[in-house]
Amino acid sequence: MRAVHTVKEIREFLESEKNIGLVPTMGALHAGHEKLIQTARAECDVLVVSIFVNPLQFGPNEDFARYPRPLAQDLEVCERNGADFVFVPSVQEMYPLPQVTFVDVERVSEHLCGKFRPGHFRGVATVVLKLLNVVRPHRAYFGEKDMQQLLVIRRMVSDLNLPVLIAGVPTVRESDGLALSSRNRYLNAEERKAASALHRALQEAANRIQAGEQDAAKVRQGAVALLNDSGMIRVEYFEIVDPVELQPVDTIKGPVRIAAAIWIGTTRLIDNVSA
Amino acid sequence: MRAVHTVKEIREFLESEKNIGLVPTMGALHAGHEKLIQTARAECDVLVVSIFVNPLQFGPNEDFARYPRPLAQDLEVCERNGADFVFVPSVQEMYPLPQVTFVDVERVSEHLCGKFRPGHFRGVATVVLKLLNVVRPHRAYFGEKDMQQLLVIRRMVSDLNLPVLIAGVPTVRESDGLALSSRNRYLNAEERKAASALHRALQEAANRIQAGEQDAAKVRQGAVALLNDSGMIRVEYFEIVDPVELQPVDTIKGPVRIAAAIWIGTTRLIDNVSA
Repeated sequence: MRAVHTVKEIREFLESEKNIGLVPTMGALHAGHEKLIQTARAECDVLVVSIFVNPLQFGPNEDFARYPRPLAQDLEVCERNGADFVFVPSVQEMYPLPQVTFVDVERVSEHLCGKFRPGHFRGVATVVLKLLNVVRPHRAYFGEKDMQQLLVIRRMVSDLNLPVLIAGVPTVRESDGLALSSRNRYLNAEERKAASALHRALQEAANRIQAGEQDAAKVRQGAVALLNDSGMIRVEYFEIVDPVELQPVDTIKGPVRIAAAIWIGTTRLIDNVSA
Repeated sequence: MRAVHTVKEIREFLESEKNIGLVPTMGALHAGHEKLIQTARAECDVLVVSIFVNPLQFGPNEDFARYPRPLAQDLEVCERNGADFVFVPSVQEMYPLPQVTFVDVERVSEHLCGKFRPGHFRGVATVVLKLLNVVRPHRAYFGEKDMQQLLVIRRMVSDLNLPVLIAGVPTVRESDGLALSSRNRYLNAEERKAASALHRALQEAANRIQAGEQDAAKVRQGAVALLNDSGMIRVEYFEIVDPVELQPVDTIKGPVRIAAAIWIGTTRLIDNVSA
């Protein structure tokens, strides 16, 4: 018998050998997802992609029903990019009983999208934990476009001692800077054109900070004005936050994340950059 | 590539081979714990006992500080009963960062102890999930004395797709019926004598139900009167509940659990029986 005092040590005794990668998605796969899958493929022996539109992370007035579900095309994308398994459960398969167990990641989910989508990150954390428990990957891959999601998952994994590495993969953008998103397909031609202002405003804010501006309110004001100029955009939030717990920063003295959510018509878009 | 639609199937493809058993405890081991360890020893190849007094599950006015911690004796108990590993982490090892991730098991934790110890089952569920993630056992063992805890963990495991079997092990009792508990050592001789009324009252309630009484209020009334007779006991709750989600039952038509918490002096004791 051996008395063991650290997580690291007990884990070394019990560890299995496989190197499994998981890319959790809601389907409607685009080039951003492809980059996730390709990164995972290069780093793992066994590659699992999951496709599941998770009802738990949608609010009652959100787009769960109309969220795109082009399954045949999605399977083709997975096949082409070398997935070994695609996990495509039904809602019934994922929630066979009324779900009464929920995971909350406080603080990290407090601001930004967490503030405007109550229950969203509870739904995300809960379903991602379920998927991690089902697949038991060594690595799981998330896009940096959904930065708050990435950091919520990272903190959950750390707080719950999950033996999985959470890899963030850089955002893929259109030539005008628009971040790829399954929701871009909701935009008509005019809205699509206006949408490029989101990345432009974030980038301009980052430039001002890199040029020495320390007053977050000033940076924010300039960016919001730029977004409002289009006449088609409603700003939900535009925030400058610390890069770990995503708490708002007043005076910029170190690395920050600049994150925004906007509405164009009935479509909600988010994006973020570092500075 | 293969498209997989069920949890069962994907798991079969990814499964590891070890048969690990975990007995999570807060130490101060007694014959009830020994029975857990012995049951696990008989059923598993690798046996891990954890000893951790979890601050997260104690309320601000509860007995975290005075909870007994006889570590040398506990290690001896583990050794004697054939444990392969004893996991004895520090608080710092279990909570290296401020814990912001919490697991709630709603409904099952709503009544009984959940009502009188706000945050208790959130703390229990969170630490047990952490321990399960650290050890990754195939089976984990819990005493039926802490029946609500057992059912909270079971529902958490089911809701979160944890690949672990939660085994309940029957309560070990003193000759007068008192359930073994690490907290029994708080009782002085007179209190210890009075404590036997708890199991007597539960048993009498079970007898009345087995004899055909369907009115939960009547059963409850008789049992509470019996407990009050001692003059030393304050009843915190005495409830008749369904055996899955632990919701109070008015008219008894099927299997129930009868559960109670009492105070004797500054010591809180719980117990339960089936009927």
